[in-house]
Amino acid sequence: MPLTTPGPTLGVVGGGQLGRMLAEAAAPLGVDVVVSDPTPDAPAAPVARDQVVGDFDDEETVRELADRADFLTFEIELADPDLLERIAAETGTPVHPDPDTLRTIEDKLVQKRRLAEAGVPVPEFRAVDTAAELRAACEELGYPAMLKARMGGYDGRGNLPVGSPDDVEDAFAEIVDAAQGGSQDEPAGVAMVEEMVDFERELAVMGCQGAVEHGDGAADGTDAAPERDTFPVTETVHREEILRETLSPTRADEAVNERAREVALDVLDVMEGRGVYGIELFETADGEILLNEIAPRPHNSGHWTIEGCHTSQFEQHVRAVTGRPLGDTGRRAPTVSANILGGGESRRAATLHGEASIFETPRAHLHWYGKREVYRLRKMGHVTLVGEDHDAPADLLSTVASVRDDLSFAE
Amino acid sequence: MPLTTPGPTLGVVGGGQLGRMLAEAAAPLGVDVVVSDPTPDAPAAPVARDQVVGDFDDEETVRELADRADFLTFEIELADPDLLERIAAETGTPVHPDPDTLRTIEDKLVQKRRLAEAGVPVPEFRAVDTAAELRAACEELGYPAMLKARMGGYDGRGNLPVGSPDDVEDAFAEIVDAAQGGSQDEPAGVAMVEEMVDFERELAVMGCQGAVEHGDGAADGTDAAPERDTFPVTETVHREEILRETLSPTRADEAVNERAREVALDVLDVMEGRGVYGIELFETADGEILLNEIAPRPHNSGHWTIEGCHTSQFEQHVRAVTGRPLGDTGRRAPTVSANILGGGESRRAATLHGEASIFETPRAHLHWYGKREVYRLRKMGHVTLVGEDHDAPADLLSTVASVRDDLSFAE
Repeated sequence: MPLTTPGPTLGVVGGGQLGRMLAEAAAPLGVDVVVSDPTPDAPAAPVARDQVVGDFDDEETVRELADRADFLTFEIELADPDLLERIAAETGTPVHPDPDTLRTIEDKLVQKRRLAEAGVPVPEFRAVDTAAELRAACEELGYPAMLKARMGGYDGRGNLPVGSPDDVEDAFAEIVDAAQGGSQDEPAGVAMVEEMVDFERELAVMGCQGAVEHGDGAADGTDAAPERDTFPVTETVHREEILRETLSPTRADEAVNERAREVALDVLDVMEGRGVYGIELFETADGEILLNEIAPRPHNSGHWTIEGCHTSQFEQHVRAVTGRPLGDTGRRAPTVSANILGGGESRRAATLHGEASIFETPRAHLHWYGKREVYRLRKMGHVTLVGEDHDAPADLLSTVASVRDDLSFAE
Repeated sequence: MPLTTPGPTLGVVGGGQLGRMLAEAAAPLGVDVVVSDPTPDAPAAPVARDQVVGDFDDEETVRELADRADFLTFEIELADPDLLERIAAETGTPVHPDPDTLRTIEDKLVQKRRLAEAGVPVPEFRAVDTAAELRAACEELGYPAMLKARMGGYDGRGNLPVGSPDDVEDAFAEIVDAAQGGSQDEPAGVAMVEEMVDFERELAVMGCQGAVEHGDGAADGTDAAPERDTFPVTETVHREEILRETLSPTRADEAVNERAREVALDVLDVMEGRGVYGIELFETADGEILLNEIAPRPHNSGHWTIEGCHTSQFEQHVRAVTGRPLGDTGRRAPTVSANILGGGESRRAATLHGEASIFETPRAHLHWYGKREVYRLRKMGHVTLVGEDHDAPADLLSTVASVRDDLSFAE
């Protein structure tokens, strides 16, 4: 594929911070980015060539995106796999990852079943379509257990711990209500419940899958397989089920990191289509790795790769989707990141104070997402801190967390 | 200055590759970029929020830019210092660096006189306003000498070696012709001539100057001075007076690098206003440093800092102009770069072949400038190659040069 101007155009369903960082990474490669997002002047808009304003699952919007693009991708699971599949077939604009992968992942029960079948270690889980089923499942799995809406949850939304038998009815009602927006329809296929994993720490691996390569001895194509790689394992720190900080290298044993990488590669075996995948994992008390969740796109746990690795997760996604070889995923130096989350209760214009401390900290890097409004726990930006080879990740973490804790949004 | 969305807006006169890389660096900092450029859809346009289409010295264009911006800067010396100064005064939008610095630098004779007065070591030079004066100067300085148009030259345009007494008349006529576009006006103030420096190698230092800081003991402000720093010294390789490759660290002795840095800091003493400055130097056969030329903006010799340093020259310029503290200029690893220059004779649509070798080379990074047309020696992009600590810059150079030499533009 020769380089031209305008270059190949990447159409991205979703124009949030992931679309923005994709556009930042695409520009040096000569890849034009057009995003679609229902919010006019979405975060990605100022750095993308253009934005199509429309819902993620609006047919006309996605068709316009496909007509303008050489490749389609998505930065949000709210994209509609059926629509993407149909429009890709009609317009001839390929979608990566495969919409079928999105379909598998967007339903957490289908995702877990598929992975369990493939031999990926997952927490014990049950489908629960009634409160009675939830109660029976919790008796088996033990209290507390984690009740999850099958569709639509992210950043902890749609996840609800069930602490005791007394909580079953209310928890189930709440999940049904959230999943159905208050409709009184039959709640079949709405929820699943998982054993609550007593984890030592949470890890994440960004996996990446490129175009299909043909093995040397495979004139018949039998050992053809996509190019695959992983980024260095990341330790993730959540509070209120929202990612707060990341560290790489992790504080886990090397054997644990190696096991995390193996599980991630097993997960990629199940995924169809080019792109990067955020693979969230638990390290249990006895050093076992269990899969938590997968996102078929760049992921918050990989933002540190922008400064921390030779190739960022965003460049890697652009390379993979546009059919270029994958880049070097090696870590350049110990690197940590801290999310800047909205505080306060009201939804209001975003005005961040205290950002001077970011600029005054050597090797700290601000990534501001360009969102006009802030509300509690909204992801507004992140700060990455790059260390030197001898720096302990825990020390870097305390520095970046303290810089981040100096920030506040004007009420 | 709290962070908001939209953030502070940086207006950039010029929308070429420097404007593009400024916009790429500004986005994560939450700084919006608007550029002005006479060519619609200039290289910076797809990554900037907007482009005002108009000449660099067109009053209406620059006024619109100032009206939309919180800070003005320029990425091309063809910006008009008088116009910038007047519009800054009228609109209250500050311009950095100071237009007076641009005025000093854009006239190579004024630049050299000012630096020589300040004690910066420069090659011997003479103002020459007639062919007879050129002949007399060459007799003093020796043949060959370098004849330079005082205004408007860049990338070697406007520089002409005078090899022998026989060349004097033609060389002077050519410079006058180039400088005046064929007008028959009195050629006073058109040219200067310099001794031809028999250099061992060429070096460059990106200097940076931030906002004024007040010394600790300076309640009266007497030791107030701008924050100043330099990036690590770069070795530059030119052919046909156009930059082809850079290396950092350089292959020069450490004492030479240190002297280059001292000279760069002396140069900054003469410069007024915030921003980065490209300072091109000669290392003579006996290890002396002489100033060659200055650009009051990010410079091709500093492109490697995007991957090679903790802060890139582009982020540094954005920080300085918008009044943020300067970032850490430390080098992360040995880093080289090679320019992708147009070949062939015709002006035609740009289609680059062979770019796969860039993507297949680990730690090689493409920067495509998004220019629609290619012609001989036009800067179309560059490739940066990041090494490991033990890598010799010369080895990295031969790898990156070989990747670049695989590239070709379709005729």
